[in-house]
Formats: sequence, structure tokens, C-alpha cells
Amino acid sequence: VASSAKSVERLMAELRRLPGVGERTAERLAYHLLAGTRKEARDLAQAILDACERVRACGVCFHLDESDPCRFCADAGRDGTVLLVVEDPRDVHAFEAAGFRGRYHVLQGRIAPLEGIGPTDLTLAALARRVAAGGIREVCVATSPDLEGEATAAHVRELLEGKTVAVTRIARGIPAGASIRHAQMTILADALAGRRPL
Amino acid sequence: VASSAKSVERLMAELRRLPGVGERTAERLAYHLLAGTRKEARDLAQAILDACERVRACGVCFHLDESDPCRFCADAGRDGTVLLVVEDPRDVHAFEAAGFRGRYHVLQGRIAPLEGIGPTDLTLAALARRVAAGGIREVCVATSPDLEGEATAAHVRELLEGKTVAVTRIARGIPAGASIRHAQMTILADALAGRRPL
Repeated sequence: VASSAKSVERLMAELRRLPGVGERTAERLAYHLLAGTRKEARDLAQAILDACERVRACGVCFHLDESDPCRFCADAGRDGTVLLVVEDPRDVHAFEAAGFRGRYHVLQGRIAPLEGIGPTDLTLAALARRVAAGGIREVCVATSPDLEGEATAAHVRELLEGKTVAVTRIARGIPAGASIRHAQMTILADALAGRRPL
Repeated sequence: VASSAKSVERLMAELRRLPGVGERTAERLAYHLLAGTRKEARDLAQAILDACERVRACGVCFHLDESDPCRFCADAGRDGTVLLVVEDPRDVHAFEAAGFRGRYHVLQGRIAPLEGIGPTDLTLAALARRVAAGGIREVCVATSPDLEGEATAAHVRELLEGKTVAVTRIARGIPAGASIRHAQMTILADALAGRRPL
């Protein structure tokens, strides 16, 4: 699209850096933003700048919030003895919606050698310091049950080995509402292996 | 996701207004922009603001460009007797890439009653004025060959009825490179109806 104006080319290039946005989508979004009164475009730009300005990683748990410590670390009513270790701030919202009321630790990613992400790229040292500071009874690792999530969980287990803290892992099994008949073999194997007294 | 910070909620709401962006995608994009150094986020916001500032609709053809008249209207080397009527600035780039070297007229949309878009929402009055001003031999309507594109083409034909200008329509037929065997019935019917001497 060499015939676009320079500033439109640059806008498309910036949009293309977003996850899941290819050349066609970038072009569609750019011209969508430039159509009409552009109020929507300016509002979006301002929302990006405002969020960048106001939101920071919590100094305790690394969740993204407008306050530091974040709303969850500042909330005295929560159970500080249980720490839920998650990959991403979005996972905090998911577990919050699921009813968890302990404290969080956001790793800011997961160990993914193929993407060049190693243990030192995560907030693991801070996690070790939080546990060493005491008061925590259980660390539950809530990374995704896939290859990288399991590798990250194994790393957390090793990191906290010998510490006086229980390290647990969220349950794998058949998801609530799912049909046994349509579940994958590996999911059924997990559900069997994790069976509990009825 | 009520547990997100206010400015993140607002950013997600703005992102959700983009075409093809649902709740999940908005959340993913927002946290992507807030991860790391945020240089990418600030660059995107700046690119949006710059494009809004610099790009405007050409006063002659309504193409979006940084100059007015746009690069195509200002280019004296083009054939001013043929006017290609398109829906969108992106179509200008597509026909430019395909080798068209006449002049353009961007309708800024198409007649779509279901979306509340009527003839007066398009740049049809300006098109009639350009034709009335003279010097144009042919107006070729290059709206998409679908229901709304055809309705828009029919409207242009009526608009220019009685004017001393040839009104043409881009050819419908089987696309270059396609296989006859896998083409839809309606496409083959178009290809037959539009057959030409070999």
C-alpha cells in the first residue's frame, strides 16, 4: 500500500505490532480510525496515554493497577497466608471472578525457551523474597496446564524447595459443564488421576 | 472484568469500538500495550494523533491524504477524462496497484439502508458537480459487486442520467487465477453473460 500518506503508513505499521493484527487488519483499522470525525481515534489515543500514565506494576505482587500497592495487596480483609501465582494480570481478574480471596503474585509471563523467555525474565526472585519474609502458608501455582505453564510450575516448586511453605498446583481435570463423551483423552486421564472421595 | 483499574477499563472500552474487536481481544490488546516499557503503546497513540492531525479528505475526490488536493488530484500526468468511483480510500490503493492512472472519486461508503446509510451520506452531490464542471468523458463505478455495491452503482447511474458522460461498471466474471471447477454458479453466470470476442 505504498500510495498511502506517510502518517497513515506509520499508523498501519504501529497497528501491525499488535498481537493478531496482520497487514489487512492494520489497514482496515487505520482507515476506520481516520473515517468521519475522528473523535473515536482521538479518544483511543488518549485512553492509551492515560492508561500508560496511571497504571503501573504493583511493587509487591506485580499486578497492574493505578495504585501501588495494588487494590489486592492493600486489602487487609484478604487471606495473606495463601499466595496464588499467575502468569498475567488478566489471570488475576479471572481468579477474582472465580471467588479467590487470598493474595496474588504475577509472574509477568512464563518460561518459554523458544521465545527466549527464561526464569530471570519473570518475577521469581521477588516471589522467593515474599516467601522468605514469612507469613505465607501456601503458594498455589496457577499457570496454564500446558507445556510452558507446567515448566514454570516445576521451576517455582524447585525455587521454594526446603522453604516452610506448601507449594500446590491448581487441579487438572474435566472442566465443569463439559461432556465426558467429547472430552480429550489427556483431559480424561487427568480427571482419573486426580479423583477424590465422593 | 470489574477488577481492572479504571483507565484500563476505559482503554478496553475504546478498543472494543474497533471493527472486529470483542471483549476478549480488547482485554488482550490492552494488557499487551501495558506490558513492558510501553514504548509501543505511546508510539501507537502518537501515530493515531499524528495521522488524525495530518490526514484529511481531499476537497476534490475525498481520498484521504496529507495534502489537499490529494496526490492523485494534484498529479497533472493522469488521465482526467476517466473518473473511477470507489467506496473507500483503500480501494484507491487497490486500483492504483492494479495500474489505473485516471482520477478517483471516493464515495466514503455505500448505500446500506440496514445500516442507515443513504445517498446523502455519500459524496454523490460532489460527484455530480465534478461531472457538471465538464472535462470528464467516462465515470466508471467500482463499488463491490454485492447487494449494496450494486445498489450504489445503480444510484450513480441514475444520478448521471442525461449528462454527456459514459457511465460504466467494472467487469464481473471469474477472477484471474481461479479454477472454473471451483467457481460459484453466480460467478460463472456473470462470466458467461459478459463474454467477449476472443
